[in-house]
Amino acid sequence: MAEITEVKALVFDVFGTVVDWRTSLIRELETFGTAKGITADWTAFADDWRARYQPAMEEVRSGRRPWTILDVLHRESLESLLTKYGITGLSEAEKDHVNKAWHRLSPWPDTLPGLRRLKTRYLIGTLSNGNVGLLAWMAKYASLPWDVILGAEVARAYKPLPEAYLRTAAILGLEPRQVMLVAAHNDDLAAAAAQGLATAFVARPTEYGPHQTKDFRADRDWDVVADSFTGLADALQCT
Amino acid sequence: MAEITEVKALVFDVFGTVVDWRTSLIRELETFGTAKGITADWTAFADDWRARYQPAMEEVRSGRRPWTILDVLHRESLESLLTKYGITGLSEAEKDHVNKAWHRLSPWPDTLPGLRRLKTRYLIGTLSNGNVGLLAWMAKYASLPWDVILGAEVARAYKPLPEAYLRTAAILGLEPRQVMLVAAHNDDLAAAAAQGLATAFVARPTEYGPHQTKDFRADRDWDVVADSFTGLADALQCT
Repeated sequence: MAEITEVKALVFDVFGTVVDWRTSLIRELETFGTAKGITADWTAFADDWRARYQPAMEEVRSGRRPWTILDVLHRESLESLLTKYGITGLSEAEKDHVNKAWHRLSPWPDTLPGLRRLKTRYLIGTLSNGNVGLLAWMAKYASLPWDVILGAEVARAYKPLPEAYLRTAAILGLEPRQVMLVAAHNDDLAAAAAQGLATAFVARPTEYGPHQTKDFRADRDWDVVADSFTGLADALQCT
Repeated sequence: MAEITEVKALVFDVFGTVVDWRTSLIRELETFGTAKGITADWTAFADDWRARYQPAMEEVRSGRRPWTILDVLHRESLESLLTKYGITGLSEAEKDHVNKAWHRLSPWPDTLPGLRRLKTRYLIGTLSNGNVGLLAWMAKYASLPWDVILGAEVARAYKPLPEAYLRTAAILGLEPRQVMLVAAHNDDLAAAAAQGLATAFVARPTEYGPHQTKDFRADRDWDVVADSFTGLADALQCT
């Protein structure tokens, strides 16, 4: 296990850990639907969109498809969902606006107070499968105070491939043990720990709403286990 | 010429434009020399170090050498300078500390007040030949409030190659005309303008100390010409 005292940078999973993508996406879709007079089960639409996330990335991870950023994968999924839900006649600009709902996700209530405290002691950044532009505009929208935006696009590897974790540490000029991944997903932490990173689990038991089936609690004895980012700041003695 | 009203992101040259690398480097070297009891002309050492910057990058730009980050180029230059100045017996940790003087550069007096105002209206980021780790730790050291750290390492091209500018805009999901380069160097701005970026010149007439030979003023009618970052904030109506 990594020694927490050696940690110099905290890198965060974003979707689910930092932001409440599901509630935000449903809100964005409902607002769009109301404005355009389009009726649909937007909650099911949001869940369906997220369900296509892992299969789309797997095409890239497996090497069957060349490197493709998440904004593009999201857009392709959106096209097929519009067909599935019988929504027609949207302009390119409207589709682009809907696709960028992923840039307008709201943080969990403890996210900003926690990040501000953690930033006083650590370099804080993203380690997300979101592309840099998506994450940068989301940060601007939600006032997320990142020191650096890293992840799949910079590492040129989608999590949980080892390179996503190892290259992120290397880009910061750090050893893996000097970097702690903060995530609400046990499988993400397991992949990071396998590469020598320190680990912190923060429970987000409502991420998937009524469809949540896992990650209610820590599966393993991670370096830190907390129920919020402010709890993480407490555990890491960031005042 | 780009329409300034379309600009959504400001990206900054860093060495010389944002930070006073020369004064900072001389200070770091003198502090190190005093602590270790090493006498040398540290001002000449600093100027010599910077003089090796463009030739080292040119090896990569020309394709004669595979992609190499600036921290590594700096370190190679340092090794040859230590030999030139007859400084021997430094440990790897000491050399690493000296090399990371480039991570501990101080901003010009107007930098932080200006960036804070510009950040309220624009996404602000780096477009530097420095690598991401160097720029992230420098930002942490100097409290530079970047929204995103971009540049040569992410674009995989050193300025003034066209790809450095074009890929930076593309990563942000923006057209070149929606991105403004802020720089104290007319040649950097010329290369950006050739790719369709908006341009702002901020004069840094003491960057090279007594050795400054150019860039005392704007060579062309850039979209904005200012004498400080706060002057730039005034020109862009950022209160």
